[in-house]
Amino acid sequence: MTTSYSTIQSGPEVITVCALFQAQVMYDFSAEPGNNELTVKEGETVTVLNQNVGGGWIEAQNSRGESGLVPEDYLQVGAVSSTTPETTTYPDAYSPESSNSTNTQVANGDNPWSGGGTYTNKTAGGWDTQGYAQTQQNAGDDDDDGEWDEEWDDARSTGGYGETTGEEEGEATGRNTHTHMKISLNKFAFSKIPNPEVYLLAKLPPKGKDRLAIYMGDVGPVWLYPQSPLDCVVADPKKGSKMYGLKSYIEYQVTPNTTNRPVNHRYKHFDWLYERLLEKFGSAIPIPSLPDKQVTGRFEEEFIKMRMERLQGWMCRMCRHPVVSNSDVFQLFLTYRDEKEWKTGKRRAEKDECVGPMVFSLIDPEAPELDIIEVEQKCELFSRFTKEMDDGVKDLLNVGNIHWKRCTGPLRKEYQKIGKAFQNLSSVFNTSGYTGEATLTDALTAAGKTYEEISQIVAEQPRKDLHFLMETNNEYKGLLGCFPDTIGVHKAAIEKVREGDKMVAAGKINTQDKGTMAKRISIMCYSLQAEMNHFHSNRIYDYNRVMQLYLEEQIRFYETIAEKLKQTLGQFTTM
Amino acid sequence: MTTSYSTIQSGPEVITVCALFQAQVMYDFSAEPGNNELTVKEGETVTVLNQNVGGGWIEAQNSRGESGLVPEDYLQVGAVSSTTPETTTYPDAYSPESSNSTNTQVANGDNPWSGGGTYTNKTAGGWDTQGYAQTQQNAGDDDDDGEWDEEWDDARSTGGYGETTGEEEGEATGRNTHTHMKISLNKFAFSKIPNPEVYLLAKLPPKGKDRLAIYMGDVGPVWLYPQSPLDCVVADPKKGSKMYGLKSYIEYQVTPNTTNRPVNHRYKHFDWLYERLLEKFGSAIPIPSLPDKQVTGRFEEEFIKMRMERLQGWMCRMCRHPVVSNSDVFQLFLTYRDEKEWKTGKRRAEKDECVGPMVFSLIDPEAPELDIIEVEQKCELFSRFTKEMDDGVKDLLNVGNIHWKRCTGPLRKEYQKIGKAFQNLSSVFNTSGYTGEATLTDALTAAGKTYEEISQIVAEQPRKDLHFLMETNNEYKGLLGCFPDTIGVHKAAIEKVREGDKMVAAGKINTQDKGTMAKRISIMCYSLQAEMNHFHSNRIYDYNRVMQLYLEEQIRFYETIAEKLKQTLGQFTTM
Repeated sequence: MTTSYSTIQSGPEVITVCALFQAQVMYDFSAEPGNNELTVKEGETVTVLNQNVGGGWIEAQNSRGESGLVPEDYLQVGAVSSTTPETTTYPDAYSPESSNSTNTQVANGDNPWSGGGTYTNKTAGGWDTQGYAQTQQNAGDDDDDGEWDEEWDDARSTGGYGETTGEEEGEATGRNTHTHMKISLNKFAFSKIPNPEVYLLAKLPPKGKDRLAIYMGDVGPVWLYPQSPLDCVVADPKKGSKMYGLKSYIEYQVTPNTTNRPVNHRYKHFDWLYERLLEKFGSAIPIPSLPDKQVTGRFEEEFIKMRMERLQGWMCRMCRHPVVSNSDVFQLFLTYRDEKEWKTGKRRAEKDECVGPMVFSLIDPEAPELDIIEVEQKCELFSRFTKEMDDGVKDLLNVGNIHWKRCTGPLRKEYQKIGKAFQNLSSVFNTSGYTGEATLTDALTAAGKTYEEISQIVAEQPRKDLHFLMETNNEYKGLLGCFPDTIGVHKAAIEKVREGDKMVAAGKINTQDKGTMAKRISIMCYSLQAEMNHFHSNRIYDYNRVMQLYLEEQIRFYETIAEKLKQTLGQFTTM
Repeated sequence: MTTSYSTIQSGPEVITVCALFQAQVMYDFSAEPGNNELTVKEGETVTVLNQNVGGGWIEAQNSRGESGLVPEDYLQVGAVSSTTPETTTYPDAYSPESSNSTNTQVANGDNPWSGGGTYTNKTAGGWDTQGYAQTQQNAGDDDDDGEWDEEWDDARSTGGYGETTGEEEGEATGRNTHTHMKISLNKFAFSKIPNPEVYLLAKLPPKGKDRLAIYMGDVGPVWLYPQSPLDCVVADPKKGSKMYGLKSYIEYQVTPNTTNRPVNHRYKHFDWLYERLLEKFGSAIPIPSLPDKQVTGRFEEEFIKMRMERLQGWMCRMCRHPVVSNSDVFQLFLTYRDEKEWKTGKRRAEKDECVGPMVFSLIDPEAPELDIIEVEQKCELFSRFTKEMDDGVKDLLNVGNIHWKRCTGPLRKEYQKIGKAFQNLSSVFNTSGYTGEATLTDALTAAGKTYEEISQIVAEQPRKDLHFLMETNNEYKGLLGCFPDTIGVHKAAIEKVREGDKMVAAGKINTQDKGTMAKRISIMCYSLQAEMNHFHSNRIYDYNRVMQLYLEEQIRFYETIAEKLKQTLGQFTTM
């Protein structure tokens, strides 16, 4: 029987929107006639009638009882008389504390993240210990259920799974052996770490071809990296349908650089892969979650592009990991030749017994045994580092999010107003009737138009640079969210090993077992070090890369504006 | 007897700050411990306890009764429960509707204008007709009063003039013949226009050397411009004192380009000059007010610099006017050789009878008489143009003011936060213990510092470019504020001329008088056209110049940032 570790993260950081919100109007907005819009003034307080109108609009009512649409950027929604004070901050997908907020999108309409969801860390809430204790597979009836065809990436169209609401992950699989834990866990309240005892005291099977080598590199213990790195391209999303068009889905083409032969996968297959990788490697390697599943506008072009971009990001990260990319299940996903091979491979993967902490049994560091103190110190170091980096990343996401909103909202508006003010003055000057007025009015109009262009450039810029900075940090946020659990396994093991003497005294284990445990915690520590070194080297590359990209685009941004202003400047004359 | 036209503009646009204000918190602010600051959250409402704390701070109290200082940029002050709803807009000196707001400075501490006052149009409220009717001078006892020594530019230290409050212009002169009209006039409620009849029906004295020539130029009627334009430099402010140090004042050195010999003047002398010019030319030529007199921090370096800059601007504008610059009183101000010459000249100027509408008697256009319809059309055109330009200028000031506040407030803060977030991440990365970390952490720190520098650049930029755009528009706002009165004289004259037939019928005038009136309104119209053409040509130059300056600095701004980012970019590497 297989138990999935997928739990839905919930708790205080998920914002409910059922209360009647008051919103503060941040900027003047003039309704366009006939568009069901509502004119509002800066400083006014309105009541939010509907936040889910879409397209960047909120339906609001003013104090005179008039209602209509207002751009959501113009409102600061706060639950003035509600039980959720958290909503005074911007609740969107980049907000560090609001992952999985697919039905709380009050955020910026211009911000693709606010609608696109994030890599939510589905397991951040904690591991299901039982899942690790009962990792026996029994997927015999898998194929008969027609898993290949059924619709588990569209919760709204799954007839037999009425209990999966929009908020939950639509985990409607044919694998009836799955018991999905759809419990709302407060991740700070209790976190279930898989019990490492299963490995520390296990009689290990002989190491086969699956052996995971660790050697000593310049930076310390490192995984064995392949000669040529694996990579793949996720592309060409195609809408398919079945049941005579009643159900539809998107299929992505995944092409690895090894075979250069594309394979097709739907989101649910990515999700299956994620589950397998998490199950098998999660105790040793942080496996980041897939991008969110439940997003509105799922067949809309932009959403598909965004999901593809993020699936590509996720696959890239997996490809770059020497252990993950080399695993049977990952290779199967990338290189299966036909449905038969896929199904056979699937069944084998689901039957894999070497999962959870048992994955450490595959690890074979050729290095001297570390004593428990050193193990503990390293574990502490990694724990502290990942926690602090998590804070730093969230801080950056927060700042970036505010900046995104400022650029697409008030700043855009302001440059527009500057542009309009120049053009306005130009129009007035034009009526002077004074000879020789034209040069100035033309120049002023040009200046005005330039500032309107700048307004556009400013509003579009975040998509060109901040987007990637946010995307990378968001990915790292997801990755870092896996560390508490991964490191938790190690900490639990350390605790167990420290209890060694007591356990011997109590007759639970013998001294040989104690020696085995010491050896194995050392192996675990090498694994953690190799993983941290992998993380660091990737992090250094990723941050260098994204900062280069960000700065390059920022430079282009400032230079473009300077160039535009130069052209305008040439039109003014005091000769 | 002389009656000054100086009235204090007051009315609905002056904001009182005595009410208990509520303020909306615009951005999060964390109090620094021990600094008497108050931590506030975006969206929170606080009560303003004291807006006059200074230094860019407001004392506020939150809903929990805690009080402390909050940066004024972070609050949007609105009289939530007050009688002055106007205060929901930013009430500072650039705000189009709040001139003369020296004791209502709730504005941006970083904005020099908020403290520096504006060219308030002291007479915008309307002319004192009586003043024009009684322009007889009687300043015989002037010198005996020791006018040269007494302190009429510091109302707070004038013992005998207890009635001049901080809000009013401290007009404490030795000229006991002055009856200063310190009445609060609502400029929209009633505007007293000098009665042009005095000129239309006067027996004119023979034209002497004071003749103001108008000739037909390419653009229509124009004043006669001097071969080489007059200019002067206001510089070298020196603090002087008298009465054994009990009273102190600032003396400025004014050096005209004609004599290149500096003369010294205190603010009160500029004010005296302004009064004379207004009295003499105000019906024909808009004479903009001097910069505000009552400003706190008067001996502070920055204030002196700002006042000097504005006195310089005012003097420049007067120098550029062919009629004003050539007048006896203006020449006296610039070129007197000793105290005796000054006093004699002063007395003569104050005795000048050719003031108010009588100034038109000096005008001598060599051009055919215009019929009343044409006169009226031109008057209407100028009236409309100046009104519309006034709106346009105020709009630009409004937008500029908001932009100024954004640059020095939230935007500065935001770039700072971006910078801190990068540096923060760099610090975390620095603890990784990973070999080869240094390049990235150094680069990230550099990026962080660059964004902190950008934050500074963004905050300082308005002083480098927006300042001049605002200054010019502010000057034009003052100038345009004079037009309603100047044009009002013409409109009153037109009305009088239109009544000509009736007046003849009633036996009030004879037909010859009627003919004289028609001739004289035509002369007035040429004067107005010459003045408008002067205004237009100056306007075209001024706006070209200030836009060049603005755009040049804007280009430098964007290029500087791009350059800084380029240097930072070079530090990142993905090799």
